[in-house]
Amino acid sequence: MISPTLGVCYYPEHWPEEWWETDAKRMAEVGIRYVRIGEFAWSRLEPSEGDLRLDWMIRAMDVLGRHGHRVIVGTPTATPPRWMVDKHPDMLAVDREGRRKGFGSRRHYDFSHLGFREESARITRILADALSDHPALGGWQTDNEYGCHGTTYSYSPAALEGFRKWLAEKYGTIEALNTAWGNVFWSMEYSRFDQIELPNLLVCDAAPAHELDFRRYSSDQVAAFNRTQYEILKAKRPDLPVIHNFMSRYSEFDHYHLAETLDIASWDSYPIGHLAKSSESDEHKALYMRQGDPDNAAFHHDLYRSVGHGRMWIMEQQPGPVNWADANPDPLPGMARLWAWEAFAHGAEVVSYFRWRQAPFGQEQMHAGLLRPDSEPAPAYGEASQVARELQEIGLDGPAGQGKVAVIFDYESEWAWEIQPQAAGFSHGNHVRGLYAAFRKRGLDVDVLPPTTSDLSGYDIVAIPALLTWNEALRSAVANFEGYLLVGPRSGSKTENFSIPPRLGPDLGANLLDLKVARVDSLPAGIEVAVKGGGAARLWREITVGNAEVVMEDEAGVPVLLSQGKLFYFAASGDKALVQRVADYMIAEADTPTLSLPAGVRCRVRGGYRVYVNYAASAQVLSPADDEAGYVLGSADIPAAGVAIARLATAG
Amino acid sequence: MISPTLGVCYYPEHWPEEWWETDAKRMAEVGIRYVRIGEFAWSRLEPSEGDLRLDWMIRAMDVLGRHGHRVIVGTPTATPPRWMVDKHPDMLAVDREGRRKGFGSRRHYDFSHLGFREESARITRILADALSDHPALGGWQTDNEYGCHGTTYSYSPAALEGFRKWLAEKYGTIEALNTAWGNVFWSMEYSRFDQIELPNLLVCDAAPAHELDFRRYSSDQVAAFNRTQYEILKAKRPDLPVIHNFMSRYSEFDHYHLAETLDIASWDSYPIGHLAKSSESDEHKALYMRQGDPDNAAFHHDLYRSVGHGRMWIMEQQPGPVNWADANPDPLPGMARLWAWEAFAHGAEVVSYFRWRQAPFGQEQMHAGLLRPDSEPAPAYGEASQVARELQEIGLDGPAGQGKVAVIFDYESEWAWEIQPQAAGFSHGNHVRGLYAAFRKRGLDVDVLPPTTSDLSGYDIVAIPALLTWNEALRSAVANFEGYLLVGPRSGSKTENFSIPPRLGPDLGANLLDLKVARVDSLPAGIEVAVKGGGAARLWREITVGNAEVVMEDEAGVPVLLSQGKLFYFAASGDKALVQRVADYMIAEADTPTLSLPAGVRCRVRGGYRVYVNYAASAQVLSPADDEAGYVLGSADIPAAGVAIARLATAG
Amino acid sequence: MISPTLGVCYYPEHWPEEWWETDAKRMAEVGIRYVRIGEFAWSRLEPSEGDLRLDWMIRAMDVLGRHGHRVIVGTPTATPPRWMVDKHPDMLAVDREGRRKGFGSRRHYDFSHLGFREESARITRILADALSDHPALGGWQTDNEYGCHGTTYSYSPAALEGFRKWLAEKYGTIEALNTAWGNVFWSMEYSRFDQIELPNLLVCDAAPAHELDFRRYSSDQVAAFNRTQYEILKAKRPDLPVIHNFMSRYSEFDHYHLAETLDIASWDSYPIGHLAKSSESDEHKALYMRQGDPDNAAFHHDLYRSVGHGRMWIMEQQPGPVNWADANPDPLPGMARLWAWEAFAHGAEVVSYFRWRQAPFGQEQMHAGLLRPDSEPAPAYGEASQVARELQEIGLDGPAGQGKVAVIFDYESEWAWEIQPQAAGFSHGNHVRGLYAAFRKRGLDVDVLPPTTSDLSGYDIVAIPALLTWNEALRSAVANFEGYLLVGPRSGSKTENFSIPPRLGPDLGANLLDLKVARVDSLPAGIEVAVKGGGAARLWREITVGNAEVVMEDEAGVPVLLSQGKLFYFAASGDKALVQRVADYMIAEADTPTLSLPAGVRCRVRGGYRVYVNYAASAQVLSPADDEAGYVLGSADIPAAGVAIARLATAG
Repeated sequence: MISPTLGVCYYPEHWPEEWWETDAKRMAEVGIRYVRIGEFAWSRLEPSEGDLRLDWMIRAMDVLGRHGHRVIVGTPTATPPRWMVDKHPDMLAVDREGRRKGFGSRRHYDFSHLGFREESARITRILADALSDHPALGGWQTDNEYGCHGTTYSYSPAALEGFRKWLAEKYGTIEALNTAWGNVFWSMEYSRFDQIELPNLLVCDAAPAHELDFRRYSSDQVAAFNRTQYEILKAKRPDLPVIHNFMSRYSEFDHYHLAETLDIASWDSYPIGHLAKSSESDEHKALYMRQGDPDNAAFHHDLYRSVGHGRMWIMEQQPGPVNWADANPDPLPGMARLWAWEAFAHGAEVVSYFRWRQAPFGQEQMHAGLLRPDSEPAPAYGEASQVARELQEIGLDGPAGQGKVAVIFDYESEWAWEIQPQAAGFSHGNHVRGLYAAFRKRGLDVDVLPPTTSDLSGYDIVAIPALLTWNEALRSAVANFEGYLLVGPRSGSKTENFSIPPRLGPDLGANLLDLKVARVDSLPAGIEVAVKGGGAARLWREITVGNAEVVMEDEAGVPVLLSQGKLFYFAASGDKALVQRVADYMIAEADTPTLSLPAGVRCRVRGGYRVYVNYAASAQVLSPADDEAGYVLGSADIPAAGVAIARLATAG
Repeated sequence: MISPTLGVCYYPEHWPEEWWETDAKRMAEVGIRYVRIGEFAWSRLEPSEGDLRLDWMIRAMDVLGRHGHRVIVGTPTATPPRWMVDKHPDMLAVDREGRRKGFGSRRHYDFSHLGFREESARITRILADALSDHPALGGWQTDNEYGCHGTTYSYSPAALEGFRKWLAEKYGTIEALNTAWGNVFWSMEYSRFDQIELPNLLVCDAAPAHELDFRRYSSDQVAAFNRTQYEILKAKRPDLPVIHNFMSRYSEFDHYHLAETLDIASWDSYPIGHLAKSSESDEHKALYMRQGDPDNAAFHHDLYRSVGHGRMWIMEQQPGPVNWADANPDPLPGMARLWAWEAFAHGAEVVSYFRWRQAPFGQEQMHAGLLRPDSEPAPAYGEASQVARELQEIGLDGPAGQGKVAVIFDYESEWAWEIQPQAAGFSHGNHVRGLYAAFRKRGLDVDVLPPTTSDLSGYDIVAIPALLTWNEALRSAVANFEGYLLVGPRSGSKTENFSIPPRLGPDLGANLLDLKVARVDSLPAGIEVAVKGGGAARLWREITVGNAEVVMEDEAGVPVLLSQGKLFYFAASGDKALVQRVADYMIAEADTPTLSLPAGVRCRVRGGYRVYVNYAASAQVLSPADDEAGYVLGSADIPAAGVAIARLATAG
Repeated sequence: MISPTLGVCYYPEHWPEEWWETDAKRMAEVGIRYVRIGEFAWSRLEPSEGDLRLDWMIRAMDVLGRHGHRVIVGTPTATPPRWMVDKHPDMLAVDREGRRKGFGSRRHYDFSHLGFREESARITRILADALSDHPALGGWQTDNEYGCHGTTYSYSPAALEGFRKWLAEKYGTIEALNTAWGNVFWSMEYSRFDQIELPNLLVCDAAPAHELDFRRYSSDQVAAFNRTQYEILKAKRPDLPVIHNFMSRYSEFDHYHLAETLDIASWDSYPIGHLAKSSESDEHKALYMRQGDPDNAAFHHDLYRSVGHGRMWIMEQQPGPVNWADANPDPLPGMARLWAWEAFAHGAEVVSYFRWRQAPFGQEQMHAGLLRPDSEPAPAYGEASQVARELQEIGLDGPAGQGKVAVIFDYESEWAWEIQPQAAGFSHGNHVRGLYAAFRKRGLDVDVLPPTTSDLSGYDIVAIPALLTWNEALRSAVANFEGYLLVGPRSGSKTENFSIPPRLGPDLGANLLDLKVARVDSLPAGIEVAVKGGGAARLWREITVGNAEVVMEDEAGVPVLLSQGKLFYFAASGDKALVQRVADYMIAEADTPTLSLPAGVRCRVRGGYRVYVNYAASAQVLSPADDEAGYVLGSADIPAAGVAIARLATAG
């Protein structure tokens, strides 16, 4: 585990070699220690097949090393060179509409294509052989942003062949598959595995289990792709970390599963574009258009800390305006500093800005860097320098501690409700993030856990919203859990094979809850059913039967929150007010201490400090908490985009 | 003709055989008499080519028969099994974008594919041979929901070949086709029929006559497909009815034409989803989100009674929430009863709920049934039982009588204005349904007639809105009609070949109306032109010349309603207020007696009774009509989703 | 140069030959002198390969000539006949989604297909040989509306082959191309030109320079296509003009470049549909739904006068409702006259109505003509007659004089910001038209200039908004310009190869402006940043550095208008109020005299007269200008859709 440190993404191949020295020196002046290189450089490493040119990369690492930088080398497999497409024309993926996607941008490969998988292993082996002993090498990044641009799913002959094999292995017999998928429903029964097609370009919906298995298959291919690189890289240098830079809000493959062959999970944090592309209201988007959503980056820090077995980096940190949203506003002054501090508070080891110098050419020429294209400092240059100086005062060493609250986030559940929304817009992730934010607004540290969690001890409250199905590990963890549990809506509403459980949902394990969902009342967008006491149900209402106690009900008398002992069932999806009421109710039940935070302010504890960040566009005033012993950075008057750090009394 | 009776859709192949007996017994307890089976079971009837397994179906019929049920057997042609696609890879249809739609859902066949047409005949023959003599057999259903999921049109080589032949037969010479289509317009002239292409994937619009002929051709293929099955089934048992279950609001083929080879027209009534998918306002949708539009089901009852030569069933009746709209709200308690009573009042013989038990697997697992997946009763179970009990008291026997008002609905006109809207959103059906609702809100029974109607006697008022072209039968019927006629807008505005008539529209037949449409002023959505006295024109205004008398005009002085004797011409499309004013004007002219109905309440007379239904979400109070002799069910205080039935004094 | 004269588009092949004489006679009675024929008649000129039938066209020209008409013959290449597609199946273009677009409408050809290019030359040669000596021949039109229906770009094998050759010629070496496109960015480097693909169907965006070069290539093919026809036609009759009829708002190819082989630029003016399809607000669209935008037709008059080297016609003038917008309202009475007068005032030589008689068949049967389909006069018949009579009184001879203001419009810049909007909705054309309208509302005559303009003398004010890059000619013109210059936003922000200039934008030429755009703050739709003093920035804000003087700044203190001497830099895109303020500021600085015009009224000076037109739906009152000597047509009380013409005192 590394103490909080800054990094940057650098493309020596984009600049004259005579600039490298100055660049490395200026990076050091900013306080940068980690430099990622190489992940798009295949055409420069191997301009034609077998013509290897690693010399320039070694020279670049020499220069960077001389200035004290540790280099993270990316395998360049996200950008296969043009000659390889001549060699493997069918390595190009096919989209859901049946169109093969050509060369000319990036990520033009099919995870199911075994020929390309071998090319990927080959170039990884070449890099491992050539660079593993370089003294500046600090670790590896596999590929770049798996799944970006919708590249997890391919509807190609290669994918079809792989899918059929995967199904044959999973089910053994075609009868077992027919039963699992419910193929009797519309005479969809198969006699042989090689009759099965991919679930695209059908007359209407495929069987939901067919779709779900295709997503599981596709996710497995991404994991297998990564595993190959991981094993090659670790074989040479077991001591160096292998990292991948995930994209937030890209849930097409199971990040937990892939991270079984990673040492550290990193992610690429672009708060402003992510808010613009989210389903938040226009009002909320306007309020935070120059900051990003106040809970979204934090959620992903906590998610990827979980994905990374406790180790998390930001591999790409937005430094200024980007180029890929419909509109790309300038961040508020200070945000490049705030985002870094927030990441560190949530456990980040390295925060690496993307990128050192704005490229004047190519697809991302409107994407800011720490330097402008004319090499003058952009605003984030100074903000990064400030963070580096501040880190020298306040190290924030040590792991981010366990929170009092946890929420379970599950990739399969994201897929499941995309496949079968029943109410357009219903999403697992929105439920998880909604509860995450509601708890966090009360000053609580919230952990994000995988659905395979087998131990919940230490938490006051655990929330499991909209989880497709409960595996044995989770059932066991819940059975032993002594805190307060909030489940639903739609939790445990399906079997592993995407069917309704025989006793109906929620199928949570024996005797936990005397409640069944008799049926679902899904609501059109814009329709709200008020809940007595405040807030409203929207999109989703479950009509339940059973003997659980009614805690809240809506104006129509339908129970919205029910309980049995310490288990609470949330039988609807709610607007923000209702979700907050439910979270507050749980907090009160669990008697968990909270903080009173001004609007837009959030906080996280790490290493004996509480880091406050102010996402609001105006200054706010903090109320010091009982457990604090004064500010070591900033003060109770926290400006817009400001950071304040309090030392905890207990940290004495 | 069968006295009003309940039915249900049942899938014995979905359940353990040992459940069948209990299911059949419970159906009988509910009061169900008709059970539809088999329409998706091809893979169980013939798991591989020629391997016929009809035994289970016969056993299921045995069980059902033992409990007094009459079985409607569906031909399974909507779900061809997987092995058949290997045999006929080109039986899969091709969509307008040129993509072949694969196996994995349903309706994966091309009506133009002669090989599949023969397979369809073959399996129908097999069923007819095996089951015709079964004592429980009560009739046949052909296929399932022809046209559902946009499957009427295929842009395949098979369709192209069929279309060329059809054109050659229709036109005889290529010169005749060139003239009919106006191909001189853009040098679109052909030398041979085999040069003609399908009207998709062009640079811009095809000639409207080209599009219209392709729709006529495609419609004819659906009819021919049905005819084959009909003839096979009737050959064995001329006494048993052959039925098809149409989808409402699916107008891609001519239902009247197809029904020439049907004994009964049934339709599948899903009021809530149909409203959600309609073009009604958000406000209207919110008001009726748990009931469906108060006039839409009734319109289709009357339409399919007409399609079915007086015989109409509901083959699938929504019992609770469904799964296929963007949101799928729970119906108001009572709606499953209300919908059944309304159907009977409009002449339904059988109302068959879809389905007996909610399936826990497959594409429709969120679609309610009379039973929940755990075999407990869902709300509609009790409501159906209540209907069955009530039917024992009030039989409603006999046909639905002729109304005082009729509207003409025409499939070709639906296609025509889709091909050439001139104002986006202009639709024949919306005009027809708008007038239907306006008359019905005044308590009038309204019949829906085909454009080939040759006798209008008995009606006070007949409305013919937006009818593409008038055939000889209709011209003759109108010439002999003694009541009040409301035509326009756009009625008779084209020739059979989709050209403007030489004397301009409306081309209604000699000397009926001294009026020409000089030009059309179509209006963007949201623009309204107020009409003096109330209401507004929207979407469509016609500028007319001639000597007809002006009855209403808009604020700009443009005539909106004109008359010549008893013929009225509506020269605009109107908002609901204007359409109501025009309907009321016609009623006043014709001196037709009306009822005063509360908002949301509608009624229909059958068999000496007037059945009132309350679509409103709140209770209403009825004003007893002069011709009534008290309520035999319910009372003047009609609750939300309630039914009240008054005996007519004359029925004494 | 021809004195203002009326014309009409006529299709003798659509009507019985015995009607031609009467038609020609009635045209003469209206006052029409020019008749365009033939542009869609290929199937009648050559019904099968080599079977030439030009006799009917010659007879039609005989008839028209007898009645004093001059005939413009269109080459029929926009509608290749069906037999040619059998001969050249690959002449059909392929759309961006990879679908070949078939026969059955029009414009079904690929500009890159050399076989079709030869067919086009062949039929042009045949027409030139047969008709050049006909006494009624008045000129030629090449093809019809190049680019209409999105036909400039084809993603076909023919286009791919042509593009590769074009690139090889442009760049010489593949290394030069790799550098120009920035291909190092994502390993997009090529080794050979034949590895380059078209920029469609990629995983994500192509390099912007790749996209831009494909647009340049495609534009060049259209120009080459036209050049061939031009050279053939001019070889026979150098004295007769060769014309093309451009579509406004179709910017897919460079109209200036194409017009290098034209004698006159004509355009097809459909004001009402163009407004409906524009990005104007719903409120503005409602206000002018029966008139069209008050500045859009004028802008295109001025643009095409520039494209046509000073010679401009309206080849198709909307006469009444058309058929191709979502809704097609009737024009206000008088608009067919107003549009003609406005065109003449802006320099039109001929205004030719489309079309003589409304066709009752084919795709455009709902498109009005001067005659209805039943040969009775439509409203525009009388309005055209009135214009012809009025022209006999007021000739408006001579060229439209130079305005006091000019704006530069550039096709490449339209493409560039479509490729890289950075703020969705950012458009070069919208900036140009916004400034054009702001100056014109002050009664100023505004010229539209190409980006290759080398002399700006005579102008008080020149505006150069959002120009991709400044060529040498323009730099030199600006260096010598003595008036007031308004540039930005985004002017000179890229190099020729779509990169950010080394010193950042605006790269305007040495020492003109001490200002750099440090970064861009792009804003979501609906977000406005108020500017001190009035108006607001929207979509685009630039953060500038340097020593230019701040003239206006927004509420956040960010400069919006800056100046250095007579050069002003507009660092944002603005709402209409802000654009007007900036225009007014420039006018005040330049001390240019203005007029005070009522809302909806515009004017233009030509030949010693000032022509006023009233686009408002209500009457307005004009304030006579100091330089006028009274009205020769109409008066200061100008009715809705009215025209008033004042004689200038100086015209004595």
